Amino acid sequence: MSYYVTHLESAIDGTHFPPDQLHTTHSGRPLWVRYDLEAVRRSVDRDQLIRRPSGLWRYRELLPLPPGHEPVTLGETITPLLPAGELGRLCGVQNLWIKDESRLPGGTFKSRGMTLAISMARRFGVKRVALPTAGNAGGAAALYAAAAGMEAFVFMPDDTPAVNQYEAALAGARVYRVRGLISDCGNIVRSLQHETGWLDLSTLREPYRLEGKKTMGLELAEQFQWRLPDVILYPTGGGTGLIGMWKAFQELSTLGWLNSEKLPRMVAVQSDGCCPIVRAFQRGERFAQPFPNAHTIASGIRVPSAVGDFMMLDTLRASQGTAVAVPEASIPDWMRIATRLTGIPICPEAAACVGALQKLAAEGWIHPEEHVVLFNTATALKYVETIQTPIPEWKGKLER
Amino acid sequence: MSYYVTHLESAIDGTHFPPDQLHTTHSGRPLWVRYDLEAVRRSVDRDQLIRRPSGLWRYRELLPLPPGHEPVTLGETITPLLPAGELGRLCGVQNLWIKDESRLPGGTFKSRGMTLAISMARRFGVKRVALPTAGNAGGAAALYAAAAGMEAFVFMPDDTPAVNQYEAALAGARVYRVRGLISDCGNIVRSLQHETGWLDLSTLREPYRLEGKKTMGLELAEQFQWRLPDVILYPTGGGTGLIGMWKAFQELSTLGWLNSEKLPRMVAVQSDGCCPIVRAFQRGERFAQPFPNAHTIASGIRVPSAVGDFMMLDTLRASQGTAVAVPEASIPDWMRIATRLTGIPICPEAAACVGALQKLAAEGWIHPEEHVVLFNTATALKYVETIQTPIPEWKGKLER
Repeated sequence: MSYYVTHLESAIDGTHFPPDQLHTTHSGRPLWVRYDLEAVRRSVDRDQLIRRPSGLWRYRELLPLPPGHEPVTLGETITPLLPAGELGRLCGVQNLWIKDESRLPGGTFKSRGMTLAISMARRFGVKRVALPTAGNAGGAAALYAAAAGMEAFVFMPDDTPAVNQYEAALAGARVYRVRGLISDCGNIVRSLQHETGWLDLSTLREPYRLEGKKTMGLELAEQFQWRLPDVILYPTGGGTGLIGMWKAFQELSTLGWLNSEKLPRMVAVQSDGCCPIVRAFQRGERFAQPFPNAHTIASGIRVPSAVGDFMMLDTLRASQGTAVAVPEASIPDWMRIATRLTGIPICPEAAACVGALQKLAAEGWIHPEEHVVLFNTATALKYVETIQTPIPEWKGKLER
Repeated sequence: MSYYVTHLESAIDGTHFPPDQLHTTHSGRPLWVRYDLEAVRRSVDRDQLIRRPSGLWRYRELLPLPPGHEPVTLGETITPLLPAGELGRLCGVQNLWIKDESRLPGGTFKSRGMTLAISMARRFGVKRVALPTAGNAGGAAALYAAAAGMEAFVFMPDDTPAVNQYEAALAGARVYRVRGLISDCGNIVRSLQHETGWLDLSTLREPYRLEGKKTMGLELAEQFQWRLPDVILYPTGGGTGLIGMWKAFQELSTLGWLNSEKLPRMVAVQSDGCCPIVRAFQRGERFAQPFPNAHTIASGIRVPSAVGDFMMLDTLRASQGTAVAVPEASIPDWMRIATRLTGIPICPEAAACVGALQKLAAEGWIHPEEHVVLFNTATALKYVETIQTPIPEWKGKLER
């Protein structure tokens, strides 16, 4: 197998960097991994590739880990794309699918980024990693660091869902609760970087988590027989998934692997308790202002400021997409409704997307016959604080 | 596609029943589903079958849902078989794999049984199901019932892990906490059956959950290139998985699909806080006495008496296997150790298997070079009561 990465490229000014060294950011902004797609096209057959074992590592030629390096993997199987007809009809569309990312290691889509980031960290000899997290990324980082035999340090806001705290600790990470938001946790990681020598795994501060998230787009193309859906609804915190999927679609387009030229309209979904990207989108700005007093039970999208803001906003505009904030108070109701209609444990972040779908369908922005995909980014079962409910004691007869 | 089920067969006395009617038990004991394996052999090519989409429904000819009936599915992908070298070496063996069942819907292997049971219930026109549960089965039943649009009633001991209670409620089931054990919950389900008309989904009281669990054995054979491991360690409550895997191996053997005649030695693992099967095995008995004062944090194996006891004990003896009880107090330690060494969130039931592995290797019952598979039957992240731990607040510097 050959290696197809040509260089890294600054997303803010286009500066190139060599691919065989560990890079983080440039001018404080993210880097893209770039490939020789012409060479990939010549040597990889799309229809052969999908016969490889199920899992994101089947797209190896479009990933940055060089041949000869074993991935750090926990078995990232292709996640199911499940029809959700009844929920779709309730929301006003006839063709709704849910991509159930809760089926990845640790019950979260964050594992896609971490299998890449930790594999690349090991390839560069890193022994110690650290990250700020809104919850699931910290757990996933701890699991993959454990699998790689690396030390992990995880900094979380002190009101992060309890299961996220415990899972990182169970996996052997050093976990700290921080009075503040994810941005405060990020400041701690950066302030100690020199002293500790750890690799900062913060969202988009190393270039490889993005490549892992890209595989959501690759899988979607494969699962839709290389003809993409019309609309993708995506809960948006740091934005790696949104940006990564759009990168995947560009690469697939360049490779000539898509059967249709039409790309999906990308929709960023946030809570009105924390919606910096929605505000910037509506104001026509390329960079987002930090969102004051950020709050939402959808902890994964409680990100008041994101280093990749301009990449998200560029994606939304390039795809003719939009950005929607849903009422915070509606999120628990959508969790229950969506789980009951689908049998999929819908997390708060995905529940926000259900609310956005209903709004966009009601406004006519999504047409009833369009094909829509919504991402369930984690399992609801990790959000114990949100799903807890009084369970009646058995008193000898069924209540009506 | 043809239908290969020939009949149902009483496990206790061999009585036959027609396959096109809904059956439950005979003389209070379970039924086997029997197939025309000669016909399956003639029409199914093992090496073609494994090119079907990943998931247990690829084995359709060895499952009881007739052609023309759509399964009730949440996308049961083939679960990863992960090498666990470091953990194996700690326990005294060189070739250890973990089959990570936490990657199924709801984070539990119980989904295998429920996708079959609910699919068959729908095929027979059932609108309402009920079950007693130690935890994960109730959650899985609720999710699949939701997907099928059925009513579900779930009865749990009142100290069942909280997440199991909440997930069933989130999925819309009617959930009750019962002062007592799973056997008391089962009595309630049976006492109300006439009045409610619900289908009793209790372990081995309908014949199809067993067929779903059987797929663990089918997947294992496929993943080991049709040459089975030497030893399988399995946490044993109701025993459907143990019995189901052994049934799978018999069927594969009859089909001529195995490349080696040697079948695995099956090991039933329990906690010394609840080990009726271990006691019966040691005493040479075919039926187990109810275990008094059953207690263990491994809620899935807190089953003081099981209707399929003789099927488990027959399996252990036929396979030249054994039964091991591990000290209850050691389970949380094994969870932490195993999760840290593998990156897989190891549930208490699987942690008991790690303890059993170390014991059997130390005693020489398992040889260091034998190939051993251990099942992680659920995600540790649902056992919040067990994984909770104090998380330190950040005070401005790293502790040593």
